[in-house]
Amino acid sequence: MLAVGNLPCNIKFVIEGEEESGSRGIADFLRQPDNVQLLQAEAILVSDTSLHSPSQPAIVTGMRGIVAFEVEVTGPNKDLHSGAYGGAVGNPINILCQMMAALHDQDRRITIPGFYDRVAAPDAALRAALAQTPFDLAQYQQDLDIAAVIGEKGFSTIERTSIRPTLDINGIWGGYTGPGGKTVLPAKAYAKLSMRLVPGQIAQEVITQFTNYLHALAPPGIRVNIDVQEGYDAALFSSDALAIKAASQAFEAVWGQKPIQVRGGGSLPILGQLQQALGCDVAMMGFGLDSDAIHSPNEHFVVDHFYKGIKTIIAFYDAFAALHAAT
Amino acid sequence: MLAVGNLPCNIKFVIEGEEESGSRGIADFLRQPDNVQLLQAEAILVSDTSLHSPSQPAIVTGMRGIVAFEVEVTGPNKDLHSGAYGGAVGNPINILCQMMAALHDQDRRITIPGFYDRVAAPDAALRAALAQTPFDLAQYQQDLDIAAVIGEKGFSTIERTSIRPTLDINGIWGGYTGPGGKTVLPAKAYAKLSMRLVPGQIAQEVITQFTNYLHALAPPGIRVNIDVQEGYDAALFSSDALAIKAASQAFEAVWGQKPIQVRGGGSLPILGQLQQALGCDVAMMGFGLDSDAIHSPNEHFVVDHFYKGIKTIIAFYDAFAALHAAT
Repeated sequence: MLAVGNLPCNIKFVIEGEEESGSRGIADFLRQPDNVQLLQAEAILVSDTSLHSPSQPAIVTGMRGIVAFEVEVTGPNKDLHSGAYGGAVGNPINILCQMMAALHDQDRRITIPGFYDRVAAPDAALRAALAQTPFDLAQYQQDLDIAAVIGEKGFSTIERTSIRPTLDINGIWGGYTGPGGKTVLPAKAYAKLSMRLVPGQIAQEVITQFTNYLHALAPPGIRVNIDVQEGYDAALFSSDALAIKAASQAFEAVWGQKPIQVRGGGSLPILGQLQQALGCDVAMMGFGLDSDAIHSPNEHFVVDHFYKGIKTIIAFYDAFAALHAAT
Repeated sequence: MLAVGNLPCNIKFVIEGEEESGSRGIADFLRQPDNVQLLQAEAILVSDTSLHSPSQPAIVTGMRGIVAFEVEVTGPNKDLHSGAYGGAVGNPINILCQMMAALHDQDRRITIPGFYDRVAAPDAALRAALAQTPFDLAQYQQDLDIAAVIGEKGFSTIERTSIRPTLDINGIWGGYTGPGGKTVLPAKAYAKLSMRLVPGQIAQEVITQFTNYLHALAPPGIRVNIDVQEGYDAALFSSDALAIKAASQAFEAVWGQKPIQVRGGGSLPILGQLQQALGCDVAMMGFGLDSDAIHSPNEHFVVDHFYKGIKTIIAFYDAFAALHAAT
């Protein structure tokens, strides 16, 4: 396996720069039949997932969907003094906290009416396969410096982060946030939140469910404005596709270890769109690690994985071409 | 009544610049007997309260106490990607919202165990007096642009802002707060909150009650740190003192209207300290309005009230001296 000679298959590159802001451009692009024709292919190869561990490669066969919102809660028409008005005028921060708290029940299930209607009970075979995934909870907790994990009752950490929907508040702000104190009852408070959706759930439906529920949670005297930031369904990829077989052979050739198939916890809006538009298979073959601190301070990537990744992709081209010739 | 001639009584000025940051300096100052001797007086006159309305002066005969805190909630040891860790690792913002929401019940009573133990049921005479205070709820709601008031069940707006304890979140922050979205599960989230205390409640006791309760509310996997920013008891002033009579005569002389006696909703830590150290009466005679937007953008003060206030204080000196000579 050397990076010399002719390519064994044709390659088209899609370079997209809006992954962290909703990928709206590609949706417009794919509405033009000429553009779909331009991208026509037999498989899509993406490297935006992680290895399971440095010694255990993984192929991701599904990604969760996502809906994301910014919520603005308004009380009085100006900031007030909490000594003069507190306790009598609805405080947007107090109310926002109550509304956000009401989105989970005591079992940490999401309380939005209808939210689980299209979430299938996970089948026994899938749960058994996930239970076989190598995972050390004690090490996980130690790495994150937490005394316990917190999640939906009745599911394991791997299930919670792959096949179950979730709701996280990604940001919150309001009132006085500088040094010392200020006895203010602010006019407004804000939160950004996102939900990960599993196959079956329809993003547009969840957007409506959430919007209706949040407005219903707001007491009289409080106004709520909801800005929908993105909404994409989950995507599942055929796990016995030619591209997956090729990816598996490529990983084994370079890493000396057969990859496991896993379901990704994150969301890649363009994948669902490309898959739908092009009608082809998807192989997700990534070389990072969950511990790379993605989207965090000190984000990093193992240099050795960078070079091994290049080799793995070369091996994929060869394997895919060979498998394709044999069909 | 002219601002000429000799003063009819002796005046000592106390100029203190820490009112908005806990007034810690004056406490140290008053621990020295020489300083207490220096300030010895028969009455304390303070202008840091409000008129009831431009046509209705008011004398404040009590101020609420205050306790204030900054709360830091810590989950994992670094910011995480919500797609990879959300739903499995406690999100400090989600948890902070749940903890803050748990501080009130459905009747908007404060749930901190023991919090109301020393809060006396308001006596019928006081409630009857407060019910006589001129107050237009529809106008109040219109001025603040709110469809309804929100407060402790069973009490009027005037009661809620004067004789009942309250809890307001004054600031909250955590995670990503810039434009657009970011799917982060942050390591930390913060809130600043304060409570107004009524006579009978002991600030140090409430600090302990709150601290214990908040730690009990934190689930395993979440750490809580609480910084106590201030703690002062409420203060009540003798309503038939000579200084109050003088203030009443002074208001009537300048504003053409007898002042009503009200209980203030805010807190003036130095007043309780001075009253305790000097053992003298207090007259709170203020010339601002609740609508002056204290502690808010565009804070203001009616110029006419500034000049009338000067005249009222001159009248107070004369009235106090005359009443004193007559005793």
